[in-house]
Amino acid sequence: MIKRLFSTTMVKKVKAQEFLLKTPKGTKDWADKDMVIRESIFNKLSTIFKKHGGVTIDTPVFELREILTGKYGEDSKLIYNLEDQGGELTSLRYDLTVPFARFVACNNLSTIKRYHIAKVYRRDQPAMTKGRMREFYQCDFDIAGNYDVMVPDSEILNILCEGLVGLNITDFKVKLNHRKILDGIFEACGVPNADIRKVSSAIDKLDKSPWDVVKKEILEKGQSEEVADKIWTFVQHSGSIREIIQVLKNSGLDNKSASEGIKEMEILAEYVEAFDIQNYLSFDLSLARGLDYYTGLIYEAVTSASAPPKNASELKNKAIEKRKKGSSSQEGEGKQQEVEEEEDASAYVGVGSIAAGGRYDNLVGMFANNKSIPCVGISFGVERLFSIIKQRVDLSKLSPQHTDVYVMAFGGGEGWNGFLKERMQITNKLWKAGINAEYVYKAKANTRKQFDAAEKSGAKLAVILGKEEFPEGKIRIKLLGLGEENEGEVISVDDLIPSVKKELSNFDVYDVTALLDNNL
Amino acid sequence: MIKRLFSTTMVKKVKAQEFLLKTPKGTKDWADKDMVIRESIFNKLSTIFKKHGGVTIDTPVFELREILTGKYGEDSKLIYNLEDQGGELTSLRYDLTVPFARFVACNNLSTIKRYHIAKVYRRDQPAMTKGRMREFYQCDFDIAGNYDVMVPDSEILNILCEGLVGLNITDFKVKLNHRKILDGIFEACGVPNADIRKVSSAIDKLDKSPWDVVKKEILEKGQSEEVADKIWTFVQHSGSIREIIQVLKNSGLDNKSASEGIKEMEILAEYVEAFDIQNYLSFDLSLARGLDYYTGLIYEAVTSASAPPKNASELKNKAIEKRKKGSSSQEGEGKQQEVEEEEDASAYVGVGSIAAGGRYDNLVGMFANNKSIPCVGISFGVERLFSIIKQRVDLSKLSPQHTDVYVMAFGGGEGWNGFLKERMQITNKLWKAGINAEYVYKAKANTRKQFDAAEKSGAKLAVILGKEEFPEGKIRIKLLGLGEENEGEVISVDDLIPSVKKELSNFDVYDVTALLDNNL
Repeated sequence: MIKRLFSTTMVKKVKAQEFLLKTPKGTKDWADKDMVIRESIFNKLSTIFKKHGGVTIDTPVFELREILTGKYGEDSKLIYNLEDQGGELTSLRYDLTVPFARFVACNNLSTIKRYHIAKVYRRDQPAMTKGRMREFYQCDFDIAGNYDVMVPDSEILNILCEGLVGLNITDFKVKLNHRKILDGIFEACGVPNADIRKVSSAIDKLDKSPWDVVKKEILEKGQSEEVADKIWTFVQHSGSIREIIQVLKNSGLDNKSASEGIKEMEILAEYVEAFDIQNYLSFDLSLARGLDYYTGLIYEAVTSASAPPKNASELKNKAIEKRKKGSSSQEGEGKQQEVEEEEDASAYVGVGSIAAGGRYDNLVGMFANNKSIPCVGISFGVERLFSIIKQRVDLSKLSPQHTDVYVMAFGGGEGWNGFLKERMQITNKLWKAGINAEYVYKAKANTRKQFDAAEKSGAKLAVILGKEEFPEGKIRIKLLGLGEENEGEVISVDDLIPSVKKELSNFDVYDVTALLDNNL
Repeated sequence: MIKRLFSTTMVKKVKAQEFLLKTPKGTKDWADKDMVIRESIFNKLSTIFKKHGGVTIDTPVFELREILTGKYGEDSKLIYNLEDQGGELTSLRYDLTVPFARFVACNNLSTIKRYHIAKVYRRDQPAMTKGRMREFYQCDFDIAGNYDVMVPDSEILNILCEGLVGLNITDFKVKLNHRKILDGIFEACGVPNADIRKVSSAIDKLDKSPWDVVKKEILEKGQSEEVADKIWTFVQHSGSIREIIQVLKNSGLDNKSASEGIKEMEILAEYVEAFDIQNYLSFDLSLARGLDYYTGLIYEAVTSASAPPKNASELKNKAIEKRKKGSSSQEGEGKQQEVEEEEDASAYVGVGSIAAGGRYDNLVGMFANNKSIPCVGISFGVERLFSIIKQRVDLSKLSPQHTDVYVMAFGGGEGWNGFLKERMQITNKLWKAGINAEYVYKAKANTRKQFDAAEKSGAKLAVILGKEEFPEGKIRIKLLGLGEENEGEVISVDDLIPSVKKELSNFDVYDVTALLDNNL
């Protein structure tokens, strides 16, 4: 972000001012080549969403404040409010999920698969380098409707994997957990019902903090040392879905909620194998997710964002190795275990999760007289995906401009008027034929300046009106970038459009999406 | 918008609530077929912007409040503020122009052609039927840089006409005026410098109110009757650029600012003829535009939105006839003239202007130490264009979903398990081949329900896994919508992808953009 201290005395109406000329904290301008990359990410993901039957919607950037109240747990303090200027109290949306649930309820829908790509707002401490902003994009796909257990959930996981692989990100893993199992564990370990969400949000920090820090938080939140230690015997485990189901069954955990969750995970294991995505998944009992509204399966994709693609698989294998070690020892060994956890996390976390979501069966009901419309969804973090992908793109080949033809006039001397009107007419002809074209906005422009402008625009072809040639109905076409000696070709003005189209058809378009194209 | 009074007792954490379930006043959800139409408008306009060398940017939805202060004249009261929750004071953007100027200054640019499609916010009295919202889209193209007089301005007018014609809106006219001429007229008529913007904003209402109402406002704003009557001798005129230049020359108007403006309009007349758009233009001395920041040419496109396309040319001719009458009589005849003005306006105004803009040479300088970066731009009003275009689209042919193939299983009786995993595998194959496909999210689903779901999705083809056929490596392909007797074709599972692709290649895609496609 460019900041500049600025002081000016305005002609006429503005007094001398002094303020920092910049975008608000935690926000940024998108421009230039970044926009090209971002648009290709949006295109790739929307193509996948459409492939799965998704339709798109667009909701207002602010909602009635009551709609957002009580949905985000401890993070509710991060909601941006609009000033009370009379009328309704409103707030900027915090995510796209609550507005989606409100939309489903408002329109009395019983089923919908929708995608939505838009900005959301959180008054968080920004960490720009890690892609944590106050204004940022989310790219969501959600399935609402009463369907069989884990069927839409497994399709969402499939979309998550397909999306990341489609963006050429293959060194990721998707951490899974189930709220019914997690809450069942807490219950079985002796956490009172009223404290479950508090303890859950402490456990969620295990990807960033070692166990002794998290344990301290659990004790501070009023649980006994014994309860905390019991929790640890569970949440340290991660591995394949079938492995962790076995761990849970061996643990002697006897809890109704957990048993339901385990049964659902068994079904999920079948379906992800049908989609052949099981190798991307890791059932991680420490995954909790902060949001209040999740009721079932939850997930989060992480990647070794900072590491170059080459040693990604090495890192992944190393991590899988560690995970295996972790899940084979039934109890953590204190210090040793903590260090491993930390290393593992730092290898994979970097910019934080790049996509996340889960099942939320009661959210629509909160807006629709408790009518049950179960939902499950995934949200891709665009800024984080962007920063990973930008490193992999050859920026020198990307142009934010799409100009193909530059129209110029060559002449000089007695009676030379610069052919401005003539350049306008010729350019207009090109535009009408659907050709991207520009010319210099000057009555008279010298040859050098016109070539410089053409080069800057990225144009492939020059169309040149010569002082002598043009009045005779002739015009010159010249490929750009071939040096001074290339004189091009003189053609009749009548042949302009077909000739230009023919020349342009020889060019390959450098397309970010092509670079990113990659199927599962 | 759907409103519903809602009262619920939430399981667990939410108390009984009562509030109106809706979007905030003046905002709406976009969904379903409307989204398809809107996206085609965005695509059409961005294609045109790219054709003219435009690059796109994206700025934050809120700006530091100081950035917006003092830019919008009387309308500044309509700016939405964010609540002061500690930190910087910010407000939602009111348009895309001021953020653009801030962007140019921030990045120290000397030239750029940028387009930006995004939402802006105004705390106005909403009039949804007329497309006046509190949250609405603008679609802007602006040219910044020091260029020869009227060259970028005429290109912007060209883009304006190309955009509307490209959207199949041809019954429009573009009203033009020049701030230097308008201010010169006010000066020559005896309006003190400090009162010019006030009087200007009164004159701007002449498209909606008769002269006696506007005159009253001018008198209330402290001008004498004589001054007001003098102003009227000018602002009643409209016609072709050359006609109105003649009117001004014949009027004996002797004012430096006005003379400069007239000279520029003479140059403009040449350029719009080079682009062959002069027939869309009407030089209208009553056009004033509310915003403070305009310094040169201003314009506004209006259309007879409510009238059906058939008699549009009739209306246009009638209006041109009237305009001619208006500009040939050098002085208004009071009552008679007023009635004509009113009728003329009501025929064309309807939803208000559908696109507007102008030249603003000092705005970037306000952010960049008075460094002069002259700008000129156009803003398309998406909501208004949308409501005109929606009336012209055959909605029955539009589908918001893009599903091509529906995967089903037929069976029943002993040992029938519904082939859910098999449907998942087959659908996954289709997805990997880039084919849009769905299946019913149930372990077992009866034939009727699967066909209903397929029909609802808009799919063209059914891929059917039969209880006996599929285990033998065979699968059925059946075109949908051909009735019960059509049994489709049984093929080997290995031939699935090529066979499906072949069948789908026979379908034409109904495309809104195709319907809208139309060059100047």
